[in-house]
Amino acid sequence: MSKGMLIVLSGPSGVGKGTVRQELTRRDKGQFVYSVSMTTRKMRPKEVDGVDYFFSTVDEFQQAIKNDQMLEYNQYVGNYYGTPRKYVEDTINQGKDIFLEIDVGGAMQVKEKMPEGVFIFLTPPDLKSLRGRITQRGTDSAAVIDRRMEQAINEINLMKEYDYAVVNDVVSKAADRIETIIESEHLKVERIIQDYLKVSGVQNDYKANN
Amino acid sequence: MSKGMLIVLSGPSGVGKGTVRQELTRRDKGQFVYSVSMTTRKMRPKEVDGVDYFFSTVDEFQQAIKNDQMLEYNQYVGNYYGTPRKYVEDTINQGKDIFLEIDVGGAMQVKEKMPEGVFIFLTPPDLKSLRGRITQRGTDSAAVIDRRMEQAINEINLMKEYDYAVVNDVVSKAADRIETIIESEHLKVERIIQDYLKVSGVQNDYKANN
Repeated sequence: MSKGMLIVLSGPSGVGKGTVRQELTRRDKGQFVYSVSMTTRKMRPKEVDGVDYFFSTVDEFQQAIKNDQMLEYNQYVGNYYGTPRKYVEDTINQGKDIFLEIDVGGAMQVKEKMPEGVFIFLTPPDLKSLRGRITQRGTDSAAVIDRRMEQAINEINLMKEYDYAVVNDVVSKAADRIETIIESEHLKVERIIQDYLKVSGVQNDYKANN
Repeated sequence: MSKGMLIVLSGPSGVGKGTVRQELTRRDKGQFVYSVSMTTRKMRPKEVDGVDYFFSTVDEFQQAIKNDQMLEYNQYVGNYYGTPRKYVEDTINQGKDIFLEIDVGGAMQVKEKMPEGVFIFLTPPDLKSLRGRITQRGTDSAAVIDRRMEQAINEINLMKEYDYAVVNDVVSKAADRIETIIESEHLKVERIIQDYLKVSGVQNDYKANN
């Protein structure tokens, strides 16, 4: 059986990663599994351990970090959040694709550990017209404009680290593009060749018989 | 304006490259230009120079080879056939994708000169079951079987040189997959980043004003 793929959807905060993921979930073609994060924050009513999150203690989480069992993690409002490596690897080894929606910091941590993943950068539709928008607004102080420009430039620089860039102009179109990328990635020789190497059983027999 | 892509469809002889290309032409979404080959064979009735082929003399063709103006070429039944490099490069520079349907020898020549192209390997659907088919047929001599196996193995080895593998099980499905690949390739960061670097005009202004 061929391995599944790791698909990482990321992008600057506010770009709409969650909305695009929800659109893909809504379509639910069963083409991939969504990664479940691990967290140390308290379980809320109606949340289910192993579905919404894997809930853990601070000790357990810190031990997991120490043992290199986290694909990525960070701290937010005093709690740890992260992606358990085992869950991702098990899913891939079962031949299923796993989908990770994650912030840019986390995505870079994942890329370091699993560079074979498919890294998709969701971009705001207005990146191109940003310059005009920022300067024409005219009400912001120079310092605020500077900070915005700097952030925009940083965002562009982050894009370089990804395999694909998808503009989030219309959510359904962004979801279409992501589906296209995943379909196409499944046709990559590097992913398919393993299946064809079953034919190399042919080759082995062939050589053995001669 | 961003550059167009070179798309190369190839595969073992008899796999149905021409039929799949015709299906793409029939759909004619205008998404790419088909490359026109150059040949020294005589023009036939109803053929149009520059449409069916670029017709040339042997001298002109050999001069083009000498001047590295052919992306690939070969000889067949005493005539030269090949792909003029300029036609391909001009199309790409105009921002249009160009589609080349070509034999495996030609594809490897193109890959050496334009490795940035998208190389798609069309495979027979029965490659996986080849072993069974070949041995179960039972009527062929060992020598014939050996030759077939060897050829199959060579075909698999060629696949490694390509970016994508598309099984030609049903022609319309094969054409769908090729369209998916092309759409997805257009979302690659390495192809998109140039357009986003227009924003680096922002960056330049930004730096100039500070």
